[in-house]
Amino acid sequence: MQVAIFGASGYAGGELIRLLDAHPGFDPTHLGAHTQAGKALGEVHPHLDGGDRVLAPNDPEMLPDETDLVFLALPHGASAEIGVELVDAGISVVDLGSDFRLDTHERYLLAYGSEHPYPHRLADWVYGLPELFDVSGATSVASPGCYPTSAIVGLAPIIAAHLVDPTSITVNAVSGVTGAGRKLADQFLFGSVAEGVVAYGVGTHRHRPEMEMALEASSGVESVNVTFTPHLVPMQRGIVATSTAPLGHAVERSEVLDVLREAYAGRPFVEVVEEPPQSRWTVGSNKVLVTAYVDRHSDSLVVISALDNLVKGAAGQAIQAANIMTGQAETKGLPLSGWLP
Amino acid sequence: MQVAIFGASGYAGGELIRLLDAHPGFDPTHLGAHTQAGKALGEVHPHLDGGDRVLAPNDPEMLPDETDLVFLALPHGASAEIGVELVDAGISVVDLGSDFRLDTHERYLLAYGSEHPYPHRLADWVYGLPELFDVSGATSVASPGCYPTSAIVGLAPIIAAHLVDPTSITVNAVSGVTGAGRKLADQFLFGSVAEGVVAYGVGTHRHRPEMEMALEASSGVESVNVTFTPHLVPMQRGIVATSTAPLGHAVERSEVLDVLREAYAGRPFVEVVEEPPQSRWTVGSNKVLVTAYVDRHSDSLVVISALDNLVKGAAGQAIQAANIMTGQAETKGLPLSGWLP
Amino acid sequence: MQVAIFGASGYAGGELIRLLDAHPGFDPTHLGAHTQAGKALGEVHPHLDGGDRVLAPNDPEMLPDETDLVFLALPHGASAEIGVELVDAGISVVDLGSDFRLDTHERYLLAYGSEHPYPHRLADWVYGLPELFDVSGATSVASPGCYPTSAIVGLAPIIAAHLVDPTSITVNAVSGVTGAGRKLADQFLFGSVAEGVVAYGVGTHRHRPEMEMALEASSGVESVNVTFTPHLVPMQRGIVATSTAPLGHAVERSEVLDVLREAYAGRPFVEVVEEPPQSRWTVGSNKVLVTAYVDRHSDSLVVISALDNLVKGAAGQAIQAANIMTGQAETKGLPLSGWLP
Amino acid sequence: MQVAIFGASGYAGGELIRLLDAHPGFDPTHLGAHTQAGKALGEVHPHLDGGDRVLAPNDPEMLPDETDLVFLALPHGASAEIGVELVDAGISVVDLGSDFRLDTHERYLLAYGSEHPYPHRLADWVYGLPELFDVSGATSVASPGCYPTSAIVGLAPIIAAHLVDPTSITVNAVSGVTGAGRKLADQFLFGSVAEGVVAYGVGTHRHRPEMEMALEASSGVESVNVTFTPHLVPMQRGIVATSTAPLGHAVERSEVLDVLREAYAGRPFVEVVEEPPQSRWTVGSNKVLVTAYVDRHSDSLVVISALDNLVKGAAGQAIQAANIMTGQAETKGLPLSGWLP
Repeated sequence: MQVAIFGASGYAGGELIRLLDAHPGFDPTHLGAHTQAGKALGEVHPHLDGGDRVLAPNDPEMLPDETDLVFLALPHGASAEIGVELVDAGISVVDLGSDFRLDTHERYLLAYGSEHPYPHRLADWVYGLPELFDVSGATSVASPGCYPTSAIVGLAPIIAAHLVDPTSITVNAVSGVTGAGRKLADQFLFGSVAEGVVAYGVGTHRHRPEMEMALEASSGVESVNVTFTPHLVPMQRGIVATSTAPLGHAVERSEVLDVLREAYAGRPFVEVVEEPPQSRWTVGSNKVLVTAYVDRHSDSLVVISALDNLVKGAAGQAIQAANIMTGQAETKGLPLSGWLP
Repeated sequence: MQVAIFGASGYAGGELIRLLDAHPGFDPTHLGAHTQAGKALGEVHPHLDGGDRVLAPNDPEMLPDETDLVFLALPHGASAEIGVELVDAGISVVDLGSDFRLDTHERYLLAYGSEHPYPHRLADWVYGLPELFDVSGATSVASPGCYPTSAIVGLAPIIAAHLVDPTSITVNAVSGVTGAGRKLADQFLFGSVAEGVVAYGVGTHRHRPEMEMALEASSGVESVNVTFTPHLVPMQRGIVATSTAPLGHAVERSEVLDVLREAYAGRPFVEVVEEPPQSRWTVGSNKVLVTAYVDRHSDSLVVISALDNLVKGAAGQAIQAANIMTGQAETKGLPLSGWLP
Repeated sequence: MQVAIFGASGYAGGELIRLLDAHPGFDPTHLGAHTQAGKALGEVHPHLDGGDRVLAPNDPEMLPDETDLVFLALPHGASAEIGVELVDAGISVVDLGSDFRLDTHERYLLAYGSEHPYPHRLADWVYGLPELFDVSGATSVASPGCYPTSAIVGLAPIIAAHLVDPTSITVNAVSGVTGAGRKLADQFLFGSVAEGVVAYGVGTHRHRPEMEMALEASSGVESVNVTFTPHLVPMQRGIVATSTAPLGHAVERSEVLDVLREAYAGRPFVEVVEEPPQSRWTVGSNKVLVTAYVDRHSDSLVVISALDNLVKGAAGQAIQAANIMTGQAETKGLPLSGWLP
Repeated sequence: MQVAIFGASGYAGGELIRLLDAHPGFDPTHLGAHTQAGKALGEVHPHLDGGDRVLAPNDPEMLPDETDLVFLALPHGASAEIGVELVDAGISVVDLGSDFRLDTHERYLLAYGSEHPYPHRLADWVYGLPELFDVSGATSVASPGCYPTSAIVGLAPIIAAHLVDPTSITVNAVSGVTGAGRKLADQFLFGSVAEGVVAYGVGTHRHRPEMEMALEASSGVESVNVTFTPHLVPMQRGIVATSTAPLGHAVERSEVLDVLREAYAGRPFVEVVEEPPQSRWTVGSNKVLVTAYVDRHSDSLVVISALDNLVKGAAGQAIQAANIMTGQAETKGLPLSGWLP
């Protein structure tokens, strides 16, 4: 099956290339870029086996005729137009961006403060977190953000089981730098990031509405309310999300872990663990590791999940969705082991 | 004034030596150690200007007669006996350990699960967070833990001003590796720490009771209840504590910042800032940087504070207390600038 | 084909498991360990997809009957006995350790200062750097060290072409911490390694005799003499070797690069590049990137090569040799792309 | 004594502010910047105790009348004009840039490939490496580069003692990112630097002519010829220079160390050590740590030195020179201990 990538020059785009090059069912035949179009792949991503490949433009007109599916890894706002155009042309799309993730225009306005160009098309897109939403047969999938994936996988079954008060959830998360994309800014220099941690987007991060939407939709519980504070830490990849919420009623830790285990029984990419998972253990794999603790002193539940923001948080999860959309095995071409010893 | 350090071979001990060597009012004449006693200072701490100094034993009997004050930087449990012995001998003590931090035996039992050898002496010690507790004239001071310092400085004025519900506070914190001390364990190898983040001590960390005690004592508000989750991140030094709590009533961000500014007016080591402080900015200085945000969507308050766990979180704060105890200027010998550009 | 790993609990052992799990031609059916035998794989290597696998002992007696080949990833000195025993039992061996790398007992004594238990068996082993030594059909292969691989790949064709004075070669190399193995020592703590670089083994590193042997054997030039200084740098993986030697005669840079390109024409895992290669670009792949510069001011040649010490410097190269030994494609199961964007 | 800094917004400028704020003999009254002029000091350098200070322009006209000395921390080429103007106005200058380091126009042309605007003024400037060149009474001092300082301190006494062949010296060095200045470029992003090492400026780095000049001038030996290869490693600060040269004649290691010890007897900022010095040990101090090894196998000498590129390699050494120029104690305001435990 021939696939294309638009936005191949970024971190998520590079990761898509790396994973698709090793995927037995997809052949990435068009690697599109914006300002980097025309450059050799090996120049833009010197870690990849570039061969003689050259980046093409992010242009639907230039796609090979046989293209079955396009992965969009574009900046916010750049997917809306192209996504609709491709879908209307009968090409399947997995959008790694945020343009089609929210289900209603109201939520979109709340998250972004501006009008969506195709508000009536939002409902056409399936939220591509395959463990919680059914993407089989879908032709347009909005792949989740990295922070939302980490928080939602941990919290959704717990909210669905009414173990916590859903109106008072605190999500604190830490992420490596690739989560912010390949941006040239003073705050992303090695000399600004190493040996430091900093919170950002306090109270305003666009991933909060996405978390609330997906937690409500997957659990059937309304009025999910999240306080979300992300932090940048000095590492390349990896997210740990630590979510705290008041217990709904007294419960043992083992019961909570059972709820998580049952929710993800048979799902190869979610593993319920007994100890707090280190983000390292997931780096390179498409797995989420999740655990939970009952804090009797404060009558609260603490849920901890870890993933690789570029794999399960971006390129890997997009390929997982594409596998299911196209009737292939969910795990095809996706690593279950990480890299860091 | 002649001072001694017991526990000079650890990270906090080394930092005490570095700061006291540059302090115009204290002369560190006895550097005690346990298993490292007898080794050259330059061998144990190759970054220090060791000269021909050699580590002595952690033995009160061997202190020079003129010793005015002893800093204890010993493992948990090792200060109780020595601390009482020194105080009884008329020598002032600043204990950087946790043996004398809690005010009652009940809290001690809750935190440590074992009896304190001198429970009736706990009340003799002043909690050495000088911005909130008066250590002037004290002769026995229990210097706060690094996580508690970061959380308490941010939260105490806010709880005192009844801005939040004190019974439902979530404190998430991240720390560099020196916070755990100089321990030889697989989990502290470079090949285990770099490129990863991990939570630990979930629901069981002994710093939680310390936070609750100090927040109650400094604010006069009872029933402070904290859910505390610390995380290890790949850096040498630095803590960011992010505390979230339901708002007590509607309030503007500017009012919250004013509460913080008023609480710390005239205090050189607490700076209220407008942006989330990066832990880097405090590394090497004795400062806490603190800010707060009102999240209207979730009706909660987010307080963020940053400090260097080895300076304001350990050696610097101990010297700050010793300065005040001995009638010297609070800032003497303590840097107001950090190191990391 | 069924294979076994002895020494599966170390960094190289874990990397062997990760690569062999994804290899279509080898099935790792016995994972041996020493002190960690009996532990779950997922406990020892939490980044791997452990499943219900448990580590077995490093015991040839316990190998499944159908075992075709054993990878030895043992500490220095531990391979000699087991290696000979396995070979004598008709099982192929790839030894990632240093016991069988040197060709003569003289060189072994020089490198290690002690007698080899089977000196007469040294000549039976082929040095497993497949780009320079023929391992096809071999049944006992000594896989090269990480530093030697990096230096030899860059220097061998240049020495063979008489471009430099072989008696005066300076090799300076830097390595990430996994090159030293998974050792519990103060000098390998995060708090000792981060933010620092240090040389070690100056003039005494056992990889120097290995480099000299392989450079002589591969080039046919005698009297190769190397001054080798390795350095530890704060990263997980990766080596850059920078080799400097007096020019044999005037030469253009393009001629030198042509010599390298011709030497490695058709070899998928060596890539000659125009710019100094960053070690990051190779991390996760089995590639060596190499370049060279002519310094006219000093009439010297500077050769720079980069690789991942755990892949091309250890597990990957061992599998590359095993592929060739067993008649499979050299590249089977071995990544040509790295991980780090 | 009132001093000024031009170029206060860069890494070296910030370090000058930090050190001068704590210096009892110098008062930094004018902090000049180019594009950042007008910004609050605390905004440009959030780690410093900015107070209400604001950056002024890099303009000699705006200096306070009582300014005794100006530190120039400007990009290459920007010091020539201002330096001459200040000197002609009777103000002492310490230039941390490279405009006045080379002694002759020939060497300048070789290093930079362009004409110096004031070639006849080059000889007026003293090379500010106080351990080897006399800066007492000087009014215009060119402070050395970071790499040259590290290599020269180690090699100068050894060349002067004719222990090595000076025509065949290989200097390999590694540096943290602050050595490159505060530049916004893709190659300096955290996501490009962490977990990698890369050589750069091979055969062309402008610090090579500076090393050769200073080694010749300080030793009296002509025809010093250096092959210099610098590398960028993932850390904030610190340099290790490893220099290798053929032995001039047979010598014991102890004799070499004695030559170094005698050369630096009584110099507080150079310490001869027995083990390879880790760059960490010097970070924050104004020290160079140096050692040497005799390699009998290759008849070569390996000299290893370590320093903090922003202190002894920049701001600290400039203040050391200013101390001597103005008749103050060499060590005034300069730390002898490092920061990293």
